[in-house]
Amino acid sequence: MPGNPKPIDQQLNELARAHRILALNGHVNMTLGHMSWRDPEGRGFWLKRAGLGFEEVGKDDFILLDFDGNKLHGSGERHSEWPIHSEILRARKDVQVSVHSHPLHATIFSGCEATLQGVCHEAVMMADKVAYYNITKGLIRTVEQGRELAGVLGEKSAVLMKNHGMTTCGATIADATLSAIFLEKACNAEIIAAATGFSWSGPDAKDLLLGGAARLDVNPRLSADFWSYFCRRLDVYEKQNSISF
Amino acid sequence: MPGNPKPIDQQLNELARAHRILALNGHVNMTLGHMSWRDPEGRGFWLKRAGLGFEEVGKDDFILLDFDGNKLHGSGERHSEWPIHSEILRARKDVQVSVHSHPLHATIFSGCEATLQGVCHEAVMMADKVAYYNITKGLIRTVEQGRELAGVLGEKSAVLMKNHGMTTCGATIADATLSAIFLEKACNAEIIAAATGFSWSGPDAKDLLLGGAARLDVNPRLSADFWSYFCRRLDVYEKQNSISF
Amino acid sequence: MPGNPKPIDQQLNELARAHRILALNGHVNMTLGHMSWRDPEGRGFWLKRAGLGFEEVGKDDFILLDFDGNKLHGSGERHSEWPIHSEILRARKDVQVSVHSHPLHATIFSGCEATLQGVCHEAVMMADKVAYYNITKGLIRTVEQGRELAGVLGEKSAVLMKNHGMTTCGATIADATLSAIFLEKACNAEIIAAATGFSWSGPDAKDLLLGGAARLDVNPRLSADFWSYFCRRLDVYEKQNSISF
Amino acid sequence: MPGNPKPIDQQLNELARAHRILALNGHVNMTLGHMSWRDPEGRGFWLKRAGLGFEEVGKDDFILLDFDGNKLHGSGERHSEWPIHSEILRARKDVQVSVHSHPLHATIFSGCEATLQGVCHEAVMMADKVAYYNITKGLIRTVEQGRELAGVLGEKSAVLMKNHGMTTCGATIADATLSAIFLEKACNAEIIAAATGFSWSGPDAKDLLLGGAARLDVNPRLSADFWSYFCRRLDVYEKQNSISF
Repeated sequence: MPGNPKPIDQQLNELARAHRILALNGHVNMTLGHMSWRDPEGRGFWLKRAGLGFEEVGKDDFILLDFDGNKLHGSGERHSEWPIHSEILRARKDVQVSVHSHPLHATIFSGCEATLQGVCHEAVMMADKVAYYNITKGLIRTVEQGRELAGVLGEKSAVLMKNHGMTTCGATIADATLSAIFLEKACNAEIIAAATGFSWSGPDAKDLLLGGAARLDVNPRLSADFWSYFCRRLDVYEKQNSISF
Repeated sequence: MPGNPKPIDQQLNELARAHRILALNGHVNMTLGHMSWRDPEGRGFWLKRAGLGFEEVGKDDFILLDFDGNKLHGSGERHSEWPIHSEILRARKDVQVSVHSHPLHATIFSGCEATLQGVCHEAVMMADKVAYYNITKGLIRTVEQGRELAGVLGEKSAVLMKNHGMTTCGATIADATLSAIFLEKACNAEIIAAATGFSWSGPDAKDLLLGGAARLDVNPRLSADFWSYFCRRLDVYEKQNSISF
Repeated sequence: MPGNPKPIDQQLNELARAHRILALNGHVNMTLGHMSWRDPEGRGFWLKRAGLGFEEVGKDDFILLDFDGNKLHGSGERHSEWPIHSEILRARKDVQVSVHSHPLHATIFSGCEATLQGVCHEAVMMADKVAYYNITKGLIRTVEQGRELAGVLGEKSAVLMKNHGMTTCGATIADATLSAIFLEKACNAEIIAAATGFSWSGPDAKDLLLGGAARLDVNPRLSADFWSYFCRRLDVYEKQNSISF
Repeated sequence: MPGNPKPIDQQLNELARAHRILALNGHVNMTLGHMSWRDPEGRGFWLKRAGLGFEEVGKDDFILLDFDGNKLHGSGERHSEWPIHSEILRARKDVQVSVHSHPLHATIFSGCEATLQGVCHEAVMMADKVAYYNITKGLIRTVEQGRELAGVLGEKSAVLMKNHGMTTCGATIADATLSAIFLEKACNAEIIAAATGFSWSGPDAKDLLLGGAARLDVNPRLSADFWSYFCRRLDVYEKQNSISF
C-alpha cells in the first residue's frame, strides 16, 4: 500500500473509534448519521454501514463505495445519504474524511434564523468555517442534492443543514471529528446564551485580528492534544464499561 | 393460537421490554403511565399493572382486562386510567398497542399554547400525526372521558393531553413505542428552540411534498432499524448493570 | 415505647434513607440541608448532623435536640438552622417530619416573582400547598426567624424561601419527602415552560373542582405507591453501586 | 522545608485532586485549563502540565516555573497561558493558588452583558468577589496581558473573562477551588433565572447587612465542611470506578 503510511484496517479502526467518540459527545441519533473516509487506493470512499448507532461501530462496519455509490466491498446496507460524501469528496481534494450527524443542539440551531457569533472558544473556532444550507430540509438522497450541499459548503469545514443536522469535513479523522464536536458545543452554548435574553456577543473582527483572539487554532499543538484527549477518554469509558470491539 | 404468530408470553415480554426502553428515553414518572396490548384471542387487552415504574416492568406484570375494565387474568391492581386504552382499542381497529406516559418535555409542551412545527426530524415525523386534547387536565378515569380522548385522537398516532402527558398508539409495539420516543424528543427540541427567542421553523407544506422532505418515514426500513437499535441498547444497559427479569 | 409502632432506630434508618432518596432526586447542595423527625417520646426532635451531604446520611447521623436547640443525644454538630424545625414542630401538631433543602430549580424559582401555576401533575399537586417566604434571603438561625417562617407556612405543606430553597413538612417521612421531590420537579417544569415564551397555564379553579382534575392526590393509594417506588429505586441504586450503610 | 507544614509532594497531590474535583463539577473543557500553586521555597509556582484534562491529573503532572515562565523542574509542556498565574501571584501576596478554567455556564455568562445578582447561595457568596475582564476575548499569553488581568482582578477572588472562562484565586487549594465551583454554579443559576423571563433578584445591600443574609461565608466552619465533602465525593467516585493515580 505505497504512499499510505497506515494500512486500511488501521484507518478503519480509527474511523470506527471516531464514531464512538462522537457518541460520547452528543452525536447519537438512533442509527442515523455516518462518517466516510476516502479510499487511499482511489477506488472511492469507505462509509459506515446502515443500521448501527455511532456507539456500536467497529472496524468491520464499513463498506467501500465508488463515487457513483456502487458497493465494491464489505457487507451491510448503504445509507441513503451516501451522496453527501461522494460529492464533498469529489469537490474537495483536500478532504479525506467527512462526518454527517444529527446532534440535538446543532439540529435545533439549524432550524433557527441564526448564525454563530462565537460566545465560547469552540464557537469562535467554528464561526467563520460554517456554511448554512437550506435548499431542502429533508434527506440528501441524490447526487444533485449532494452537489448542492457541497456547493454551499465551499471551502469551509462544516455546514449546518436546516431542520436536519450537520456535515463536517477535514484532512484527517481527527480534524473532521473535532469540528463536529466543536460545532455541537458551539450551537449548544449559543442556544443557552440566546435564551437568557441578555445582550451577548463574541469577538468582533478587530478582536480576531489581534493575534489569535479567542481562537485556539493558532496553536498547532492543541488539535493534536484534543484528539489524544478524546481518544483516551474513549479508552477509559470502554474499559470502565467492559466494552470491546 | 391460530392467526397469532407469536405466543402471548413472548408478546408480553416484548411489551415489558418496551416499558423499559421508554424508561431509558425519558418516560419515567414514578409509577405513572402504562402500555396496553390488544389480546389476540379477542378477550380485551393486556395492561401493565399499577404500582411499578416503567424500568421495573417484567413479562408477568400485566393483567388482562375486558373492554369494560373487568379483570380476567393476572394479579395486581388496575391503573385507574384503563379507559384510555379500552376506548382507543374500541375505536381503532388498526391499533394493537397504546402507550400512556408523562415525560417531562411533552407534558410541559402540552401545557403551552403551541403545536409542533417540526424543528428536527422527530418533530417533522410526528407533527401531522399529533392531536391536542384539553377537555380535562385531569386523569382519564371514566369510559366517557376515554371516548372523548379517542375522539380527539381520531386517526392520528398520538395525542398530547394538556397538563398531563401523552398517549400514542400503533399497529405494533415498535410503532407505538417509537411514536412516544419521537414525540418526547420533538417536544424537547421545540421547547429549546422556542426559548432561544430566535425565529425558527420546520419544513412548510411545499417542503413536505418534495419527496420526503425531512421525513424519515418514507423509508420503511428505518422504523425496523430504530426499533432494533433501541432493543440492543436496552440489552447493553441491562447487561452492564446486571439487571435481569 | 408505647404508642409508637416502630422503634426509634428503625425510624432513623428510614429518615436516613429519605435523605438519600432526596439525593437521587436533585436535592444535594454540598453539606447543606437537613431533615428532622419529632421524637416519639416528646423530648424534642431528631436532626441530621452537620457536615454531611444527603447522599452520605446513615441512621447514626442524627442528634436529638430539645425545642430550644439543646443537644440531648448523639454526636456531631448541630446545623445552625435548627430553628426551622423546632418552630414548625411547635406550631404544627400534625407535623412529624420536616425537610429543608436547596435544590437548584426550586431555589431559582424562589428568587423569581412567580407562583406555581400547575403545568404538570407535580405542580398541580403542590400549587395550593405552597407558601412563599421572603422576610429574609439568608439563613434561618434564630427562634424568631423560625417562628416567622412557620407563620408564613401556616397550614400548608411547603414553603419556598426566597434566594434560599424550600422547607416541606408532613405527618410521615414519606409525605414530607414526596412534597420536597414534587416541589423541585414542579419548579423545574415551570421554569422550562416560562422560558419557552409560549402562553401556558395549569388547570383553573373550575378544572380543579371537576373530580380531581390533574390532581393525583385524590387517590390515596398513589402516595404509598410513589414512596415504595422511590425506596425501591434507592435499593437498586445502592446495590448497583455497592453502597452500604 | 521549614515553615511549610506539608511536604511539596503532599501539596501537589492535593492540587491534582483539586483538578479532579473540578472535573466532577463541570470544569472540564478538553485539555484546557490549569491550576497553579506558589512554590513554598520561593522559586516560582507549580503549574499543571499541558495536554491533560482535569480528570487526568495526578501528582506528577506539574512543572515548576519561575515567575518569568522558565521551567525549573518537571517534565511536560507549559500551558501558553502561564502568565495568568505568574502575574496574579506577583500582584497578590495573599494568594497561594489560582484556577483557570472554561466551564460551560461561566463561559456563556462571561459573553453576556450581565453581572451576578445572587439568585442562589453560591451566587450571593460570589457576587461581590467577582471582577469582569474584557480587554481581550482571547488567550492570555503575554506577561502584559497577565498583568492586565491581575489588575482587573484587584483584591477580588474571581474574574470572569469575556468569551473565555474564569480565573479564581485563594490562600488555599480549598478556597480557590470552591470559588471556581461556586462561580460556575452561580452562572448556571442566573442563566436559568434570566431565561424564565420572570422578574427575579438576589438580596439587596440592606439584606446583605442583616447578619449574613444569604451569605454562607459568615460561618467559618462551612468552607471546611464543603471541601471535605468534595474530597469525599472524589474518593467515592474514584473507588466506584476503579480509578487510581
